[in-house]
Parts: sequence; C-alpha cells; structure tokens
Amino acid sequence: MKLAMLNDKLVSQEALDPVYFDRGIYFGDGVYEVLRSYDGKLFAFEEHMKRFARSLAEIRIDNIHIDVIRDRVLRAFEAAELPNAKIYFHVTRGCGPRNHAWDKDMKPSFFLTIGELGDSTREKTQGIAVSTHPDWRWKRCDIKSLNLLPNILARQDAADKGCDEAILVDEAGLITEGAGSGFFAIVGDALQTAPLTANILPSITRRFIVQAAENIGLRIDEKCMTPQQAASADELFIAVTTKDIVPVVKFDGIAVGDGKPGPHTRALIDEFRKFTV
Amino acid sequence: MKLAMLNDKLVSQEALDPVYFDRGIYFGDGVYEVLRSYDGKLFAFEEHMKRFARSLAEIRIDNIHIDVIRDRVLRAFEAAELPNAKIYFHVTRGCGPRNHAWDKDMKPSFFLTIGELGDSTREKTQGIAVSTHPDWRWKRCDIKSLNLLPNILARQDAADKGCDEAILVDEAGLITEGAGSGFFAIVGDALQTAPLTANILPSITRRFIVQAAENIGLRIDEKCMTPQQAASADELFIAVTTKDIVPVVKFDGIAVGDGKPGPHTRALIDEFRKFTV
Repeated sequence: MKLAMLNDKLVSQEALDPVYFDRGIYFGDGVYEVLRSYDGKLFAFEEHMKRFARSLAEIRIDNIHIDVIRDRVLRAFEAAELPNAKIYFHVTRGCGPRNHAWDKDMKPSFFLTIGELGDSTREKTQGIAVSTHPDWRWKRCDIKSLNLLPNILARQDAADKGCDEAILVDEAGLITEGAGSGFFAIVGDALQTAPLTANILPSITRRFIVQAAENIGLRIDEKCMTPQQAASADELFIAVTTKDIVPVVKFDGIAVGDGKPGPHTRALIDEFRKFTV
Repeated sequence: MKLAMLNDKLVSQEALDPVYFDRGIYFGDGVYEVLRSYDGKLFAFEEHMKRFARSLAEIRIDNIHIDVIRDRVLRAFEAAELPNAKIYFHVTRGCGPRNHAWDKDMKPSFFLTIGELGDSTREKTQGIAVSTHPDWRWKRCDIKSLNLLPNILARQDAADKGCDEAILVDEAGLITEGAGSGFFAIVGDALQTAPLTANILPSITRRFIVQAAENIGLRIDEKCMTPQQAASADELFIAVTTKDIVPVVKFDGIAVGDGKPGPHTRALIDEFRKFTV
C-alpha cells in the first residue's frame, strides 16, 4: 500500500494537498523575487519582472507567462492596500511524483505573500555589524533560486555572532556578496563592488546605487576585494531591496572607518531616495 | 492588509496550511534520505539513519531525535506491507515567517512517502547511457540536503539527450559523481571511484560495493577521473540505493568496452545481491 506520513501520522497520499509533493520542497525547483513599494509606488517593478523572467528561463520553467505573474503581483498589491509593502513570490515547477527529470506538462505553482515592510530606520542610521562566512553556494548564483540553504546557514552564523548579515568569501579568498544582499565599499573616491562576472546575483538595487554614486561624483570600481581589504575600506554598506542601502560599521569585529555610517554612504542614501519618489 | 496568493487566488495567510510557509520550500532548509527493502527486509537501515542524523546535525536541526525518525520509518514500513518498498523521507526546519536566520524553537516537519519500488531489471541487464554535465552544486555535497536544483537540471539535460543519468564534472575537469548516484569504473583489475574527500555524498551503496569488489578480488583505487578516462575505461557503472548497481554502456555517446554490461560489473551485481538476503 502506498502511504505518506506527516510528522507522527500515517495518511494516504491521495488525501494530501498536492503542495506536499511540490518540486519546490523536494528539490528547491523554483525561482523567486522580493520587491517593495515606497509610499504606494512599486519600486523597479519592471526590472524585477525582467529578472524573474530570466530566472524562469534559466531553469527552464517555460509554461507560465511573465504577464500572468505581472498581473497577479499587481492584483495582490492593490488588494493589500499597503503603501510600504514587501512582496515575496515564487514559482515552482509544479507538484507531482518525486522524479529528478520533470514532466513537461507540469503546471507551475505560483505563491505570493504581501505584508507591511518592517522599519529599517535603526539599521540605516546606526549601521550594522557583519561577519564573514565561506561561500558554499552553487555555481549559478545569477539565478534567484529556492536553493538557499548555504545562505541561511551563513546568515544564522552571523546572527550567532551578533551580526546582521554574513558576507560570503569564495575559495579564492574574495568577497562575492552578502547572504541576502549586495556588498559595497568606499575606497577614496571610488565605489568598489564585485563585478557581475563573479558568482553573484545581478542585484537590481545595485544598478540604482551605481547611478546614485555617479550622481555624487564617485568612480565605479568593479573589482572583488578580500576581507582584509574590506575591513580597511573607508566605508562599507550592503544593499537589499527591502532596505536599499544599509551602512556597515563593523566588519568581523573591526570598526569600519570611525565606526559610524560614513559621509559617502549617507550621501548615497539621500541620492537613492530620489529614485523612490 | 497581509495577504497571500495561490496561483490565481487571493487568500488570507491565516487560512493556509502552514506547509506553504515551510522553510523547506522557501530555502530548501531540510535534509532527506531514500531507502529501500529487499523482500521484506530494509537494506542498510542503520547506515541510513546514521547518515541522516549527521545531515541534521550539519545543518543544525537539533530538536528532533533520530530515534523518533527511526520509529516513524519503521511504522510506515510495517503499515505499507510492501516487500520491495521505496521509502523517501525528509525533515525541514519547520514552518514560519520567511526570515533567513531561524527561530530556535521552531518545530521541524517530517514528511515520508512509501510505495512499491519500480522494477530495474531492464537497466541492470541492458545497461544505461549517461551524459556529462558541469557540476554546479554547492560546496557541501556531503550533506544530503533539499537543495537539488543543480541535480535536477543536470538530470533533465541527460534525459533530453536520451540518457538515464548525468555524470557531473567539476571545474577542474574531474568527475565527482552522478546527479543522483555514485559513479564507478573498472580499469584493469581495479575499481576506480572519486575519494570521499571530493565534493560528493558519502554513498551507503558505495560501502557495500567496495566490500563486494574486495570479495571478487578487485583492487580499490580512490581517484577522480576525467570524462576522457571514463569513456575509455573497461567497464562503468552507477550506484544508487533504489537500484544498487546499474551498468553504464554508453558514456557521452561512446560505447563503453564492447557496449554491453561487463563481466566485473555483472560479478559485482551478483556479489552485492548476497548482502541483501
């Protein structure tokens, strides 16, 4: 007899919600996005849609159209009536028996949550502490996939050290990015960050930061750095959709600059704000 | 208002089964095992339990005891009354809001399926074709985690080429293992396979194969090989719990040996069978 078991309980497989057999849970076979609104306006919506369409294509989920996703996200945003919303959504390849190769007629599963964005004033004004962790991720971090175990293990390690983010260091000893963020340094008159050719996610926030940096007269230096170089930078910050720019004031226990958010980072925060109105 | 959306439908988050918020689907934050029985007897049960306990510990899921898992698996096996059963089970860290760092009081989720094992006589007697694919997996393949997107992408690529398994090749140009199997070659009087120090899963089937190889007088050569070396080996096979030893007769389109399951592989299949009675 074919059976399933949920925690302590034996059940027939047929009695279960198909989500229990979702390839998202069996394999992490799906991709996701997180976006936000500022005062009732979705930020960089088309950029997120474009990246999501690319993620879908890269893992070969080809039977759901990006226009369908776009409509659903907009419907949810309107229904929730939250001026400052955080929207998470994913698409998995679908539900079915656990076979590595997939059935091409599978119906993808779409799942979204929307809620009020948490306040990040404290982090933005006081800055955060970060710690380093080996970058254990796969070789296709350009795809925003549900395979995030290395990210969450690194983030928890940071949390255990009293830090807010883990900065990932690859086998060559170079920083790629944060467990859930982009990583940036100010060195002299330059904004330094890993090139997109590194094994990193093409961050949408990054594009706006580069624009903001040019606006305030910084040079852009796309070059990986070591943890030692990062710790001795003039200023550091991370970038994440839900909080845009967050100053880093401590790196592996070492104070960055004078231990307070630096002037260029604060100028970038102000400049970035102009994109959001 | 906080909301969720399932495919085309807006719903309240509270109305949803907690499984929709399982960290297994958000992050692949869980570990799994697959085991089987031969004629009513579970094979290598304690070895699988031991490996599972290690996987749990490595990803720091520490609030479910392996004895609880053991009892559940045995209960499901007894209830199903299948002499030749395939048992899949996973434990995820639990269900909750999507935060990278976890709540240490989270209750892990256990999920199991049991069904009749598919017949593998054809593969075992005729052999299978395999194709190579870049090994895109993370750096901790010693952990049997739910982050399997690189594995399924590789397997689908193989299926598209008319092959039954993908053989993964790392950045140094060396074979690690199959997308869902161990990989072995017979070269002269030696059984060759990647050492466990490579980024591979410590296969339980492998241990029995090594024993079987020693029993029939083969030397054990733990050394990685290139695809070119594999294609010119005398014999090739893969090893997987559900089918034990499966001969490989075609490697990236090239016939292996005389294109039929080789004598040493067949002898290993016979020798392996003795462990299962």
